[in-house]
This record gives sequence, structure tokens and C-alpha cells, in this order.
Amino acid sequence: MSEKTETATAVGLRGVKAGNTAICTVGAEGHGLHYRGYSIEDLASRSSFEEVAYLLIHGELPARARLEAWRREIGENRRLPDMVKTVLSTFPADAHPMDVLRTGVSALGVAEPEQGLEDGKRSAVRLLGALPSMLGYWYLSSRGKEAPLDVEAEHHADYVMRMLKGDPPTRLECQMMDNSLILYAEHEFNASTFTARVCASTLADFCSCIAGAIGTLSGPLHGGANEQAMALISRFENPEDAARGVRDMLARKELIMGFGHGVYRVRDPRNGVIKAWARKVSEARGDMRLFEISEAIENVMWEEKRLFPNLDFYSATAYHMAGIDTLLFTPIFVISRISGWAAHVIEQRADNKLIRPLANYTGPEHRAYVPMGER
Amino acid sequence: MSEKTETATAVGLRGVKAGNTAICTVGAEGHGLHYRGYSIEDLASRSSFEEVAYLLIHGELPARARLEAWRREIGENRRLPDMVKTVLSTFPADAHPMDVLRTGVSALGVAEPEQGLEDGKRSAVRLLGALPSMLGYWYLSSRGKEAPLDVEAEHHADYVMRMLKGDPPTRLECQMMDNSLILYAEHEFNASTFTARVCASTLADFCSCIAGAIGTLSGPLHGGANEQAMALISRFENPEDAARGVRDMLARKELIMGFGHGVYRVRDPRNGVIKAWARKVSEARGDMRLFEISEAIENVMWEEKRLFPNLDFYSATAYHMAGIDTLLFTPIFVISRISGWAAHVIEQRADNKLIRPLANYTGPEHRAYVPMGER
Repeated sequence: MSEKTETATAVGLRGVKAGNTAICTVGAEGHGLHYRGYSIEDLASRSSFEEVAYLLIHGELPARARLEAWRREIGENRRLPDMVKTVLSTFPADAHPMDVLRTGVSALGVAEPEQGLEDGKRSAVRLLGALPSMLGYWYLSSRGKEAPLDVEAEHHADYVMRMLKGDPPTRLECQMMDNSLILYAEHEFNASTFTARVCASTLADFCSCIAGAIGTLSGPLHGGANEQAMALISRFENPEDAARGVRDMLARKELIMGFGHGVYRVRDPRNGVIKAWARKVSEARGDMRLFEISEAIENVMWEEKRLFPNLDFYSATAYHMAGIDTLLFTPIFVISRISGWAAHVIEQRADNKLIRPLANYTGPEHRAYVPMGER
Repeated sequence: MSEKTETATAVGLRGVKAGNTAICTVGAEGHGLHYRGYSIEDLASRSSFEEVAYLLIHGELPARARLEAWRREIGENRRLPDMVKTVLSTFPADAHPMDVLRTGVSALGVAEPEQGLEDGKRSAVRLLGALPSMLGYWYLSSRGKEAPLDVEAEHHADYVMRMLKGDPPTRLECQMMDNSLILYAEHEFNASTFTARVCASTLADFCSCIAGAIGTLSGPLHGGANEQAMALISRFENPEDAARGVRDMLARKELIMGFGHGVYRVRDPRNGVIKAWARKVSEARGDMRLFEISEAIENVMWEEKRLFPNLDFYSATAYHMAGIDTLLFTPIFVISRISGWAAHVIEQRADNKLIRPLANYTGPEHRAYVPMGER
């Protein structure tokens, strides 16, 4: 907006503080990310996804006994009601997995309606447990494999990796996934989280909020950047080819996904973590080609545009080298971000005010109705 | 907010103009409602729901030939894909119909994915046609009745009434429904419409936007007021009982649903129209008891609180006297409002900017990570 007046229209709500939150800060000093006050670097290097999900949803890091009980609770919630299984098995192998997850969550809301308005913590752990099962049940079953549901003892990242691959993952792949789930868990009032809060503000049920958030995340301007990063790095044979190719793309003013960020100005604090995992998983596979192509692209983007890679860029290499279908990259985002979405729905419910903005009317003034015969 | 500074937090986005729209104005002079510049009074008295849906989605009133083609197009879109029928028939008779519709729309998005980003007009008429079929297919089938789908020739309100009742409706009931669908069709940046726009702003597919909107509308602070109005008027035996009962409720500071409005200050322009229909449908049934109870409540609310009935209040009497289950009142809202939601998704896509507000952080400052053993 060129002018700023009392009634200025905030298109895209850019710069508008749309509410209070105690969950997360993004972009302090251009590069910081904190969940409940803890830095993403500390959480990624020292905690597990289950701890982080607990922290986001309950506000504090769990002590050992509480964490063990929480892991069991997540495990118990991996079961799926028959109604949801029936819905998921209706969908073919070539369905879009984000559409499948959105419908699975919506169907869970039919099968297990909330009893009155709860604080949301029960639904949070229900979805935390059920989402990987939904994805695996549809993905593996529709490909003729069996989805090993109801596995109660496993760590969450291990369970997620098994649902994504069907085959047993390596220890290193599970560790990479655990860290990746931490990095994607929460990011303040992004569009999908904001959808969840608008929906929660009418006191709608939990599954409505999360189905809305999944739908919003499915848009290419929000989730999906790591899939597009994969498409980019797959185009090149080697690092030299990639450097030349990306310079050509820049010259043609083509959009390169996975670089820069709407909020971070200096760097994306999650990039260092995921880049290290991309390297480690590639080394374990004994195949550095994709990683080196990625680094060549990173270098060109910095030299030419002073743009840094965001979380999505090296996620593509890390996931691909761990044997995960590109198709499942955005669903992993869902399986992680459910923890942040849940925390926001719970926070919205705890101190609710209906979210109802105004609009700036730009249409026709009053018009007299024209009878059919005179049109 | 008591203070207004540059960085004031707009909790609930109250007073914030969150974008431009040419679709609708609400509450001008405290009581006006215009769709695309035409007053709701003109549209309710002189047009049909199909005309209004066309006006909202395409921007202009259709000439006769265009309207006839549009009616045919809506009719052709009443068919449901087998995949959606399978999903709907999974749900039992006691499911919540809003959860069923949300899931049906989400499943339609799986069955018929958009091919790239379209302007949205094709999806708009798809859902306009399919939503009453989804509701009727689940509602009637789960109750052992047959849902007469694929009826291409009928006027929309007639089709809707048949899906809601199973039995053939009267002419008057269909006319009432036609007017009611016009009244509920559009209402600017209310919470469900705003959800649809936030979702659309990531360039998510049409069914994601509408599934999100249905979920948001399902919350008791948004849709559902006509169901609660029905619960209220059902409590009383006669007008005297109602007047006394509502005075007692007011004395106990209980909430009376269906009165006042967040935007209208003088009156709800839709009330006169729906009240007249409530009277006519009651007269045709030869049973004025519920209508008289409603009027008694209206009088008390005006005398005691200077609150006017909104659209939801007399909708309850009109729908009930037309033989419609209370359970289906909010789904009728969906079947109508799809026209407004669709118009907003189309408008958002035509000049898109990602909707991404900021938040005001109220949580803990940076905290050092506490190792597990020290918690």
C-alpha cells in the first residue's frame, strides 16, 4: 500500500498482527526460530519429535516419565476406525496424497465426533498418532503392500519412515526423519495455521480445523516447495550442468523454488540442520551426486541473487536419498505440522474471539433490478 | 483495543479490512445488503436462486437463454461419482450432516482433481449441483429411502426440497426454499468465507477451500444459529409461555440465539422476507402455534433488549413448518452459501496475494534447553 490511513486495506494481511500467541517466534534478528522459547538449534540437536510435539501442545518439555507416557499415548492413537479405513481404501493409488489426508481427517471427524467443546489436547494426540497411519494405510495398501498399523512401541519417526517406505528403514534414515519432523513442526501464523485458527474461532470441531489446514497447506504457494525443489535437482546430471542450468533459468527469470523466505532475511535457521542430514544420508548410500548438484545450485543462487536455501531445499535431497517417494514430501509436512496446528487450535479455544475481518468494497454502487425480459 | 498504535494487535481482526471485494456489501446504513450492487429485497422478491448464484459467480444477471443454459449446467452437475457415493454411504444415519458434507466435498476433490489452476467457475457449478445430492444421498439412503439423483430438469429449490424431505414438497415450500437460498447466499468476509479465501490464497484446489469453509461454518458461533433458534421455540407450549420463558432466560442472563447481529445495527434486511415465509408456510399447514410463539419471543426481545431477529430466527419456523429436520438447517446454509464462497474463491484467484498475517508474541523469552535428566 502506498498510503497508510486508518482504513487502509491490508491485502494479504501483510504486516497485520492478527492475534496473540505464546507458541513460536519466527525471524527475530532475521534468522531466529524458537518454539515456546527454545531455539530450533537446541531442539534439533538435543530432543526428539515426541518431546517437541509435547512442548508445543502442552507448553513445557516433558520429564522422562511423562515423555514415556506420551509416547505410549501417541502409539495407542495409531489405530484407525473401520469407517476411516473404508474411506481411505476407496481412493486409488494415483490420488493426490494431500487430498487423501484431508479426507481421512474429515472422515475421522465423522467417526469420532468431539463431545462438546474440549480443550483440544485429546484430539491433538489422536491426530498425531493417526496421521502417519492414514497416509501409510492408503499409500501402501493402494500399492499392494501391507501397512503395519497399531505398532505401539516404536518411536514416532521410525513409525513414520515405515509408513512411507513399507520396507524397514535404516537407523540413520529414522534419525534424519526425527530431525526433519522437528524442523517442520511449527511456524507461527503461516496460512495453514491461520486457517486452523479462523476455523477454530467459530468453535468448530478439531478435525474441521485440521482438514482446513491440510487443504491450505496443499496449495503450491505454501506446502509443496520441497517437491518442486526435487523436480529442479532431478533435471541435472552433475554439478556443472546444474550451475549452468540454474544460471540459464535465472537469465530467463524463471522461479527457483526452495530459496529465500517471506520472514527470514539473513538465513533460514533450519537449513544447516537439514543440509547436514542430506549429506549424511547421501554418504551412507555412497551416492553424493544429488547432494553435489544441490550444493552447486545453492552456490549459484547465493552468487547471483544473494538468496539462501530454506528448509525445503535440502529436505528434497535428504528425503530422496532416504528412499521416499517425492509424492510424500508434503504429507510429511502434515505429519510434523499437526503438532503446531494443534497447539494453535488449543490456544485459540482457550481465549477465543471470532475471527471476522471487514472487506474493502470495490464493486458497483446500488443498481436497479432489471427484469428478465429487458436483459 | 484501548490504544491504537502502528503495531496494535487486531485480535479477531475486528475492524481490519483484510482485502478487496466486488461481491457484496453488508450493513451499509446499519441494515443494507447488496449482492453485486443489487439489493437483497429486489433479489428476494423478483429473482430465483439460480439467477442469484449466477450473479454472484459471474458478476451480472443472466439473460433468459443464459439462465436456461445455467439451470441445465447445474442439473448436469447433480450426478455424484461412485467414489463419493461410496464415501457417503460409509457414514451412519446419526453422523453430523456438516461433517458428512465436509467429507463429501473433500472426497469429490480426490475423485475429480482440478487440472492445474482454473479460474474456478467450473468447480463452482460442480459443487452448486453436487452439494444437495451429497446431502440427500447420505440423508435419505442412511434412513432407508431412495435419493432421486440425476434429476436434470428441476428448479434448484425443488431439487433441494426433495433431497431434504424425500417426499414431494408443495409448491409453496419450494418457493420458500428458493427465497431462503437467496437470503443465505452471500455475506462478505464472514469467518467461513474468509477461510475459503485464506485457503485459496495458497492456490489450493477448489474443494480444499470449500471443505475448509464448511468446517468453519459448522462451528456454533457461525452456522447453527437457526438450529438453536429451533431448540428455543420448541421449548414453549404457547405465546404466553414463550414470553414468560424468554423474560426468565434474560433475567438469568442466558444467551438467546437468532437475535442481533455483528454487522447490522438497525435491522437484518433478510428478516422481513423470511418472516413472511414462516407465516405463509404455517398458514398453509393450518398451524400457527410455532409462528405465534416466535412472534412472542421477537416482541419480548425488542421490548427488553432492543434486539431484532436476524435471518436465522424465522428460518427455524419456516423450515420446520415445511417439514424439514432440524438437523438439516445448517446444511441448507451450505447449499446456498456455496454460491458466495465460490464467488470469493474465484475473486481471490483472479488477483491473488498469499494471506499471511503476523502474530503478537506473548510467550517466554529465550530459554536454555534442559537435558532430560535435569527436568
